[in-house]
Amino acid sequence: MTPIVSIVGLSGSGKTTLIVKVVSELKKRGYRVAVLKHDAHGFEIDHKGKDSYRHKKAGASTVALSSPKKFAVIRDVKTEWAPERIIRSFLLNADIVITEGYKKADFPKIEVFRKEVSTKPVCLKDKRLMALAGDTRPKGLNVPFYGIDDFKGIATLIEKTVIKKYRKETVSLLVDGRTVMLKPFIEALLREGVLGMVKSLKGCSNPKEIYLRVQKG
Amino acid sequence: MTPIVSIVGLSGSGKTTLIVKVVSELKKRGYRVAVLKHDAHGFEIDHKGKDSYRHKKAGASTVALSSPKKFAVIRDVKTEWAPERIIRSFLLNADIVITEGYKKADFPKIEVFRKEVSTKPVCLKDKRLMALAGDTRPKGLNVPFYGIDDFKGIATLIEKTVIKKYRKETVSLLVDGRTVMLKPFIEALLREGVLGMVKSLKGCSNPKEIYLRVQKG
Repeated sequence: MTPIVSIVGLSGSGKTTLIVKVVSELKKRGYRVAVLKHDAHGFEIDHKGKDSYRHKKAGASTVALSSPKKFAVIRDVKTEWAPERIIRSFLLNADIVITEGYKKADFPKIEVFRKEVSTKPVCLKDKRLMALAGDTRPKGLNVPFYGIDDFKGIATLIEKTVIKKYRKETVSLLVDGRTVMLKPFIEALLREGVLGMVKSLKGCSNPKEIYLRVQKG
Repeated sequence: MTPIVSIVGLSGSGKTTLIVKVVSELKKRGYRVAVLKHDAHGFEIDHKGKDSYRHKKAGASTVALSSPKKFAVIRDVKTEWAPERIIRSFLLNADIVITEGYKKADFPKIEVFRKEVSTKPVCLKDKRLMALAGDTRPKGLNVPFYGIDDFKGIATLIEKTVIKKYRKETVSLLVDGRTVMLKPFIEALLREGVLGMVKSLKGCSNPKEIYLRVQKG
């Protein structure tokens, strides 16, 4: 899966502002960046009067828009999708996924902390906390501290400890919506087995990327 | 792939209005409907000031939003994705995909025609034209004609000739972004091969749906 780093912190601490700067910096350094924002309270994206809004309101479970430069998909879900599922389904083409929120998920995380918002960071005891970006260095901090505006430093940290340490996976497997971790032997078996079958098909002698979906009939 | 019907017609003919009514009607009849709108001139979905807009503007190639009830993905593309690719990647969970536009694609289509917008339907000679919905019956029409407001009749037509005639595929294969058509023998080989391997994995003894992605290392 694409490497992930979560930017966490209380509402109003400045997560979005920091992410915007870090995205821009990482892009400058040549990386493809995806952002996944968690919004526990819901969000509005299609606006009244727009066709997408009208289709959705009429009862379409999914509305997609496609143009020469971008596409968008808006989809209802019965229960919230895990971030891993969204990333595996939609964000695999990025070099790094930055999530906003998901402070309880098991991702490496950087907390944004401002004294006027809270007296104490919320992830101080989280084992995956890799750094804190703040206006004040809190007591008891045992991870690196960055100034809240030090987006270049944070971009370098993400580059060194998340992006570059990542071993590119060649096989991802999702069974009934759940990611299955693969041991190297199984990964090789699936990869070589599927590659072998696909290569024998007309026009597929040198596939670079294969998506396969199997449903029980 | 999910069955598809395209609603086509000139700009201003009333495609969106008809689709909204047909979506609502098909939903009432118990179908999960997805809508894919083609917009050759581009579209705006994330609005100034919204976090998704800020992330995108900062250079994120993909921005995703997730909440307990829905998620959204906005993604830049270098060249426009074919509708089949979007459907295979994002819309497989629907019973029917209604596309707005794509009049040149090889999908069964219904044209919306209004005399004040044009003198002649644009898809009259298209072999995939299955019906015309209009305010006037044009000359030389050799497919069924429906009144422009007859959304129930059109929903019934889609139900009978598109949704119900559809044989549920059990294997879909995408190689380097291109859909590969499978003969029954190959389909069975891929399905049984992958099912066999996956079933041997811990916790996967009875998979209903498998997504597999293989990349050249």
